Amino acid sequence: MAGSRLAAAAGAGMAGERVADNPLVVFTPSGRRGRFPLGTPLLTAARQLGVDIDSVCGGRAICGRCQIVVSEGEFAKHGIVSRLDHVGSTSAAEVQLASQRAVAPGRRLSCQATVLGDVVIDVPADSQVHKQVVRKRAEARAIELDPIVTLHYVEVDQPDMHDPTGHLQRLQRALTKEWGLGALSADLQVLQGLHAALTAGAYKVTAAVRDGSRLLHVEPGFHDSLFGLAVDIGSTTIAAHLCNLATGEVVAAAGAMNPQIRFGEDLMSRVSYVMMNPGGEVELTRVVRDAIQHLAEETAREAKVDLRDILEVVLVGNPIMHHLVLGIDPTPLGGAPFPLATDGAIDLWASELGLALNRDTRAYLLPCIAGHVGADCAGVVLSESPHRSDELMLVVDVGTNAEIVLGDKRRLLACSSPTGPAFEGAQISCGQRAAPGAIERLRIDRATLDARYKIIGCDVWSDEPGFTGQVTGVCGSGIIEAIAEMYLAGIITQDGVIDGAMAAQSPRVFAEGRTFSYLLHDGEPRLVISQTDVRQIQLAKAALYAGARLLMDQLGVDTVDRIVLAGAFGSHIDVMYAMVLGMIPDCDLAKVSAAGNAAGTGARIALLNKQARREIEEVVRRIEKVETAIEPRFQEHFVNAMAIPHKTAAYPNLTRRVALPAPKAAAAAPDSGARRRRDARHRET
Amino acid sequence: MAGSRLAAAAGAGMAGERVADNPLVVFTPSGRRGRFPLGTPLLTAARQLGVDIDSVCGGRAICGRCQIVVSEGEFAKHGIVSRLDHVGSTSAAEVQLASQRAVAPGRRLSCQATVLGDVVIDVPADSQVHKQVVRKRAEARAIELDPIVTLHYVEVDQPDMHDPTGHLQRLQRALTKEWGLGALSADLQVLQGLHAALTAGAYKVTAAVRDGSRLLHVEPGFHDSLFGLAVDIGSTTIAAHLCNLATGEVVAAAGAMNPQIRFGEDLMSRVSYVMMNPGGEVELTRVVRDAIQHLAEETAREAKVDLRDILEVVLVGNPIMHHLVLGIDPTPLGGAPFPLATDGAIDLWASELGLALNRDTRAYLLPCIAGHVGADCAGVVLSESPHRSDELMLVVDVGTNAEIVLGDKRRLLACSSPTGPAFEGAQISCGQRAAPGAIERLRIDRATLDARYKIIGCDVWSDEPGFTGQVTGVCGSGIIEAIAEMYLAGIITQDGVIDGAMAAQSPRVFAEGRTFSYLLHDGEPRLVISQTDVRQIQLAKAALYAGARLLMDQLGVDTVDRIVLAGAFGSHIDVMYAMVLGMIPDCDLAKVSAAGNAAGTGARIALLNKQARREIEEVVRRIEKVETAIEPRFQEHFVNAMAIPHKTAAYPNLTRRVALPAPKAAAAAPDSGARRRRDARHRET
Repeated sequence: MAGSRLAAAAGAGMAGERVADNPLVVFTPSGRRGRFPLGTPLLTAARQLGVDIDSVCGGRAICGRCQIVVSEGEFAKHGIVSRLDHVGSTSAAEVQLASQRAVAPGRRLSCQATVLGDVVIDVPADSQVHKQVVRKRAEARAIELDPIVTLHYVEVDQPDMHDPTGHLQRLQRALTKEWGLGALSADLQVLQGLHAALTAGAYKVTAAVRDGSRLLHVEPGFHDSLFGLAVDIGSTTIAAHLCNLATGEVVAAAGAMNPQIRFGEDLMSRVSYVMMNPGGEVELTRVVRDAIQHLAEETAREAKVDLRDILEVVLVGNPIMHHLVLGIDPTPLGGAPFPLATDGAIDLWASELGLALNRDTRAYLLPCIAGHVGADCAGVVLSESPHRSDELMLVVDVGTNAEIVLGDKRRLLACSSPTGPAFEGAQISCGQRAAPGAIERLRIDRATLDARYKIIGCDVWSDEPGFTGQVTGVCGSGIIEAIAEMYLAGIITQDGVIDGAMAAQSPRVFAEGRTFSYLLHDGEPRLVISQTDVRQIQLAKAALYAGARLLMDQLGVDTVDRIVLAGAFGSHIDVMYAMVLGMIPDCDLAKVSAAGNAAGTGARIALLNKQARREIEEVVRRIEKVETAIEPRFQEHFVNAMAIPHKTAAYPNLTRRVALPAPKAAAAAPDSGARRRRDARHRET
Repeated sequence: MAGSRLAAAAGAGMAGERVADNPLVVFTPSGRRGRFPLGTPLLTAARQLGVDIDSVCGGRAICGRCQIVVSEGEFAKHGIVSRLDHVGSTSAAEVQLASQRAVAPGRRLSCQATVLGDVVIDVPADSQVHKQVVRKRAEARAIELDPIVTLHYVEVDQPDMHDPTGHLQRLQRALTKEWGLGALSADLQVLQGLHAALTAGAYKVTAAVRDGSRLLHVEPGFHDSLFGLAVDIGSTTIAAHLCNLATGEVVAAAGAMNPQIRFGEDLMSRVSYVMMNPGGEVELTRVVRDAIQHLAEETAREAKVDLRDILEVVLVGNPIMHHLVLGIDPTPLGGAPFPLATDGAIDLWASELGLALNRDTRAYLLPCIAGHVGADCAGVVLSESPHRSDELMLVVDVGTNAEIVLGDKRRLLACSSPTGPAFEGAQISCGQRAAPGAIERLRIDRATLDARYKIIGCDVWSDEPGFTGQVTGVCGSGIIEAIAEMYLAGIITQDGVIDGAMAAQSPRVFAEGRTFSYLLHDGEPRLVISQTDVRQIQLAKAALYAGARLLMDQLGVDTVDRIVLAGAFGSHIDVMYAMVLGMIPDCDLAKVSAAGNAAGTGARIALLNKQARREIEEVVRRIEKVETAIEPRFQEHFVNAMAIPHKTAAYPNLTRRVALPAPKAAAAAPDSGARRRRDARHRET
């Protein structure tokens, strides 16, 4: 076929030219080059040169993955003239694929185009195996596509009487011959389906191979559909991203409330449920697995993906979620010394997690770091990659516990700090979850002390024309701004006391029993920030700061170069207000950023790139784990951090941007909540 | 402690002697020797010298496995005087174990006895890890105990706040430190039980490790009970042997009819059942798995073994049984080219086979050799080990198909031959299974043509005083002798025709239609050998011979050095009569032996010795598989082998022992059954 095409080409465009016996082929952008015999398919040439070109069908013009562009013109650098007709004419298979829009205009399949003369071949990014996956954030690490599961179409020798080799061994032979794969293990379920797949496909099958070492799944005929699911199991919500493992693209995403909430709002009440109801962990395991199954089904339905094409699942979660989804009793994590069953990564059948996808689907859980620092934090590390950073990074994932990582490419430390649920709007009188109607931004007039605000679901401020919508409460980011603005407006002192003297300035400050409150919204519902509310936020932010500061002590530093706030909360707060409150240490505000659901992103990175799994496993092993509960300096930092923004720490970067009130006369000392909160540490895992 | 014992010893028996600083320790029978500091435990000394001494508790005087005997006297060869008190006095732990009869009189524990002076230490066979397992047959290969699962008692560091290492990692650390084990993988179920085991055992646990690479199971505290089950799944019967993996001993054995028999007596009718009833393989799989489970329970009950202590199962079976127990559709094996799902060994969870033992129990299936030559034959090879033989061995496992292996340490060939069920007493008018009342031995008076016989269940011959018991039929070995004796008595000709002329000599030969029959037993029931019965045996024995002969052709040999008859049938027949009939080629009768259930023995070897698994996997790969159905010479050999003992082959060894009748005038040609039988080949898989 190559020969006849050569003859045709020679007869047409190339008549009269001297045809080199071994034309030069140059691939861009790699710059790799070599001379090849006439008629060599470009895909073969690329492979011999180690040029990265994708293929599932192994050069049979079926998959359309190996597209290239022939560069035309004179390339002085290479000393050649490259022409379209130097790679032969378009084959029938290419015409066919082009008619199905499987080959882009102006492109050829490198398995069909053959070397007939000197050429410069451009390999587009989307034809590379290790293509880069697009991420929105400029500072985020690049994801190189290199999934652990790969598809390989092969034609298997049919069994015959002279060759009693088993189906498995003949398939292995084909995979070795056509794809250079080494010895593959195969589990029982693959063997059980092997004969049916081979005969249904007339001995042409597509093998899914995992990590180059396991024959994971066999589909009859050519099959080019391979997906993976990344799941972040939060205490409150579970988020799933369905990814196309051929492109890296997120084809559908969905989230759901963690159904375990009916057994307890926070983690510790769920552990208590198990302690009070022996065997209750079975129920908690079941509901969280069911929820993941539903998310898988929902995303697959949305993206019109067959559930059976999801061959890989990656999960992250805090230690208790991690243990519960695995069906491991989490109660040991409910008491000191909080021992994990394992701090290693886990690789198992998705069916062992009760997931009904393909019965050959595997699942991978990132490693937990310590009893309070989970696989979710490992996901955050993978996503934000402080271990690759030259700058000293502080990465904070705020939830009921804050998981805090500090370090750079040389050294990495991690701890968790018991912030409690105040940042999520819980335990705040007017607090609520982030939902339509919740105040998320807030400004207080310095003279009238009146508040104006924005609510979720409405794009304009409350004092602007077009403001609509019913105010329902204040969500986490709104609380932060409310307390910070109250401080900036002088309503609360540096010690966090609502200053009764301000009642003279505005009726919005008013006495309630022995303390004062601030009326945020006078309507239905009436929203008030009480002294207790301020204390809750002080406790939470002091815990967060103290954890970060403890790591800074361990590392012997006083400042950090960059701060990343991970998690939904981190995405919604205004980092300046976080700094006004003293949640985080001082830092150039331009270098404080939100990373969104970084834990989920870490799961997605591990899903798309198998090397990232080895990387995070290695990084987690060398992370220095710091246990705040046994570090005396933690309590000292905690007490000092109760002040706004801090009793002793300086905020030069902040004060360049915003004028902080001058300290007033010392008000009442912080209440005993600080100690209560610290003592409650072990309950608030 | 070693120091105080040293002082005591010095004060008592060793007073006045010069105590060498580094006494000489000689271990027998290995002869290894070395000098050790005073107070070194003998177990430590042995390990440093690479002397093979068993231990589960790691030197804590719990398991009692490391017993040694101190040799007393002057050893000129070593230049030392060895004395009992050169190893210190008996420890309290030894006294305790001795009172429980866990230490034999005159023995010491090598973990308690310490080097205080020159000594010669004898390590008894039962204290060695790699002890030899006793086999009854003199010519059988030795089994060296080296099970794939080993027990290791360890004391694990308790978790603490300063060390957030997971339970798994702390256990791994202890196993590495105390036992030198490398990185172990652990599956989900181990993780799920880890915390409970560690806390129940106060962080002292016994780990079962598989193949040095997998943490298989964890028991609280010291646990020294480890068993394995070897299972031979025959078409007719299933046999199970429960073995103590610490001693190699068979602690219980049981057999059961294969319950699949209700779906069809022979293999092919079971495959037909599946073909006619799609999904029927699920039922066949279920009943065979249930039967194995019952055998496990029966043997465990008999030996008073906890089912959960059975951590390893090894199975063999013919290809159809192999596929069915695995839940792999066997129908492809019902038609040419009989493709196996795999010809490799299989390692999986016993729970994947539906076995409810310990949930951590693993199972191993020996490899199948070809579509008609199963894992049972691999077991026979492992047991009889032609691949280790200098002599050329012919190994025949007789069943519905005969599986035949020929070769020596240089080269090995295998085939199967369609003998049909005649050797098992089926399709013979007076035939029956081997059971009480069945004739198993038979002699015919050359003058009267009267038969005398022995039946199963009675030790004397029918013409001897004390003969009791009801004759019910003739079993396989009885049929062989009956036909051979009829030939030797001249009742049947070399061509297998019952000679009507003999009717004149005795009324026992009589006409039935156009052919003659022989009256074996004139009673209730009346037992007759008809011409058709003779033909059935001729067909079966010709198929067996032709298969063996075909392999001899391939190997280019005319004689074999040794013949082994495996299987129940082979154990009961008199090999001389087998040779008279021409079932097997000529051979020195002293070198023809029966191996009993060699397939089951092979399973037991693989259970007791992990190296044997690699060995048989490697041997099976290099066995040359011969398919009789496509070899034209098979038919030629088959036709020639219809004669008794053979049309052309010579039997010099036989004729030195027994006078064969002179050929009579040619009788009728063999009937068309030969072709029918051959054509039925593919039905009788």
